[in-house]
Amino acid sequence: MSKFNELSKHFIKISRFNHLASICGWDQAAMMPSGGNDARGAALAELALHVHDLQNKPELAEWYEAADLEDLTKEQRATLSEMKRSWENDKIIPSDLVEAKSLASSKCEHAWRTQRGKNDWAGFAVNFEEIVKLSQEEAQIRAERAGTSRYDAMLNLYEPGVTTENLNAIFADVKTWLPNMVTEIIEKQKSETVMGFGNDFLIEKQKLLGLDTMKLLGFDFNHGRLDVSVHPFCGGVPTDVRITTRYEENEFISSMMGVVHETGHACYEQGLPKHLAGLPSGTARSMGIHESQSLFFEMQLGRSKEFLGLISPLLNNLFEEQNAGAFGADNLFKAYTRVEAGYIRVDADEATYPAHVILRYEIERDLVNGVIGFKDVPEIWDAKMQEYLGLSTKDNFKDGCMQDIHWTWGAFGYFPSYTLGAMYAAQFKAAMLRTVDVNKAINSNDLSPIFNWLSQNIWQKASLFSTDELVAQATGETLNASYFKQHLQNRYL
Amino acid sequence: MSKFNELSKHFIKISRFNHLASICGWDQAAMMPSGGNDARGAALAELALHVHDLQNKPELAEWYEAADLEDLTKEQRATLSEMKRSWENDKIIPSDLVEAKSLASSKCEHAWRTQRGKNDWAGFAVNFEEIVKLSQEEAQIRAERAGTSRYDAMLNLYEPGVTTENLNAIFADVKTWLPNMVTEIIEKQKSETVMGFGNDFLIEKQKLLGLDTMKLLGFDFNHGRLDVSVHPFCGGVPTDVRITTRYEENEFISSMMGVVHETGHACYEQGLPKHLAGLPSGTARSMGIHESQSLFFEMQLGRSKEFLGLISPLLNNLFEEQNAGAFGADNLFKAYTRVEAGYIRVDADEATYPAHVILRYEIERDLVNGVIGFKDVPEIWDAKMQEYLGLSTKDNFKDGCMQDIHWTWGAFGYFPSYTLGAMYAAQFKAAMLRTVDVNKAINSNDLSPIFNWLSQNIWQKASLFSTDELVAQATGETLNASYFKQHLQNRYL
Repeated sequence: MSKFNELSKHFIKISRFNHLASICGWDQAAMMPSGGNDARGAALAELALHVHDLQNKPELAEWYEAADLEDLTKEQRATLSEMKRSWENDKIIPSDLVEAKSLASSKCEHAWRTQRGKNDWAGFAVNFEEIVKLSQEEAQIRAERAGTSRYDAMLNLYEPGVTTENLNAIFADVKTWLPNMVTEIIEKQKSETVMGFGNDFLIEKQKLLGLDTMKLLGFDFNHGRLDVSVHPFCGGVPTDVRITTRYEENEFISSMMGVVHETGHACYEQGLPKHLAGLPSGTARSMGIHESQSLFFEMQLGRSKEFLGLISPLLNNLFEEQNAGAFGADNLFKAYTRVEAGYIRVDADEATYPAHVILRYEIERDLVNGVIGFKDVPEIWDAKMQEYLGLSTKDNFKDGCMQDIHWTWGAFGYFPSYTLGAMYAAQFKAAMLRTVDVNKAINSNDLSPIFNWLSQNIWQKASLFSTDELVAQATGETLNASYFKQHLQNRYL
Repeated sequence: MSKFNELSKHFIKISRFNHLASICGWDQAAMMPSGGNDARGAALAELALHVHDLQNKPELAEWYEAADLEDLTKEQRATLSEMKRSWENDKIIPSDLVEAKSLASSKCEHAWRTQRGKNDWAGFAVNFEEIVKLSQEEAQIRAERAGTSRYDAMLNLYEPGVTTENLNAIFADVKTWLPNMVTEIIEKQKSETVMGFGNDFLIEKQKLLGLDTMKLLGFDFNHGRLDVSVHPFCGGVPTDVRITTRYEENEFISSMMGVVHETGHACYEQGLPKHLAGLPSGTARSMGIHESQSLFFEMQLGRSKEFLGLISPLLNNLFEEQNAGAFGADNLFKAYTRVEAGYIRVDADEATYPAHVILRYEIERDLVNGVIGFKDVPEIWDAKMQEYLGLSTKDNFKDGCMQDIHWTWGAFGYFPSYTLGAMYAAQFKAAMLRTVDVNKAINSNDLSPIFNWLSQNIWQKASLFSTDELVAQATGETLNASYFKQHLQNRYL
């Protein structure tokens, strides 16, 4: 067998263990009773260790060398390059650190689920300290190899190619125009009235609304499910994608848009090329591109007046006893594009969202680089919230630095992906408009031209190209944040 | 580290991978969308192979020898012996057979879920042929090592110590008295009237009934869940036990008693000694003892008039719009002890149940031993159903040989455990009555004396003793089927 084929077989084996990790991880967040967590954490850590061992198989270095000399197609060459990247990222972390981080994440995430509700920073800080320590160790090892800062080394895991320097520049630019724009939008919206929706939305019906919306968005229920978790996420595997949302009895707005967002992630996963299943080249390109798909669904598509025109009859049908008059597309659009400074990132509108990301970026960058300590986080959070959004989170940890799940896993370097994703999504939409009549597609209740564009330009390309190549092929240029600015201007001003 | 400790550590590692297999197996049956099955099957087969590799770790033979010479406590000695038994059972099966059987089981079980509903024997037979072939291969390897028949070698996996010779004798005896007893009971019950219950039992309410019943039975919801699957089962791990049931809108009888049955399995798992977690000595003793617990819950406890007196107010409360008059304990008892020849094993009453088991036992014994072929199964099934229960299953595969999940996994040798379990349960009940006032405990709505007896005599003893030793310690004698006969006589005649 050629060494390229040996490597492919080996990666498919690894992907099968990762399949088990994904499903058991989903279960841990969506199904598992609390008392099961210690044993689950131990089992997942054992599995992480085993996957790490597989990445450290002694023959691999030799296989890579030999495969490099083999006569490979362009696609195989890209696959080899992604296998090598994955291997190099994994093998430099020592086994005991892999196990320790897996155990600490399970513990921190699980405890956070109840600590957050209780605003228990002191309890959280105990586990968080450990997570920060282990993440710094990991970042240090990666940084030494890559010759970068610790945080740059972590960024590279989620967003290969992006650096602190890039982000500082992008975010500095955003800071020059966004605060004024937000002020203007809020001023403009003062004169608009949004009709209220009532406050009694049975969870069973909200679930039906979510399922109907997923159907509309092309989610394949033969290869996925919708469930409930504290923090909405998209997990599972491409053949079986698990998305979650959360419900409040008194409103449907956030659970519905949460479903739209996660469905964007899910359609990307479901739309990855089948013939590359199990290979690193067949996985999603980066977290930024992943977020570009969820935010394309949520922001570009989901909050458009045209799409809300499709949601309107569903709402009328399900919740007729509520204020059905409010379910018209115009009023839904007003409600779904309301701009307001708020505490919670996942509930934020698209205009204030970058502020939430920049704040987290600045904190996690300094935390991983050791410029600040874990104890400093609440105070800095509060100061930045006041500066960027005029809100104080003093002593309000649950709506402040304890609101997100990411840091409980030590996923430092992930947050910038959200704003990069929003920017990519706007750029993709602008490019799509050159060949697809998006509004016509929505108005005729056949969204397939939209999904076909995404499938051809993003989903089917998986990790066969670098992010820059992928974006340039799809849009004619690499990341250009002006499309995002333009989108906000068009929609809100 | 002592070799005993090395071995223990190794088995705890294996148990962690088995944890992942259990949860993903539960998910496959209770949560997974159909399109996820191929990838799941591949992932579980890869895992089975890995566990098999761990059991084949080259150092183990040496470790067992060294550990045998170490100064061990009695409990450690029992642990060592169970580790060795597990190792010997696993290591003799070649890896490719382990993988092939795992893949074939996933495929056969998954297809069976829809084939059964369609009565599609032809479709099922394709996968079943493969399962029979692989199981025969496995049995042959085990038989050669043990110097027994193929079927005896398989029996030993589920019921160590029990042989075809034992079972032939036990079942021959049952055949001498049971048919007459069933006739007598049916005759006697002809004069009894059972009030009907109505036919509109909302599934959501049945679920609440199930949850309330589990609470009554001491199920620990911090370490387990109740869900839905085509075939009720108890899965998961001791720290997180997953039981399932199935609901019909028009009756509550079978889902409720299904829950009671699975809760018996679950309480055994939840009640296993924590300090032996992950070690083979800390697992359930055998499938027969496992069934003794589910059948103790279902038959000895669940169908008693006293216990049904606790269910009565729950039913009145949940289903008051139905025929609430029928929910009195006397009428519930009549309904739950109705004897009638039927097609479906899991719906069978305890008097006709042994006929279902003997039929399966005789078929699977001859199938594994190669006396009959997989194609012969429907015809023999029909003939035996006519002989034992006076019912024909000609061309009715779904209520005949396709009704159970066990054979889709190749779990040949499991079925006798059900009747052994019923016999053990009756024997345990008789022994329990010497020190526990069971009816008083139930009437006072505090079942803890019953659970304490089971915990001390069965659950906490896990696999520290052989089945014969366990039963003798608990009851003063080894298996004595006359308690079962006596129980039927007392309850039904």
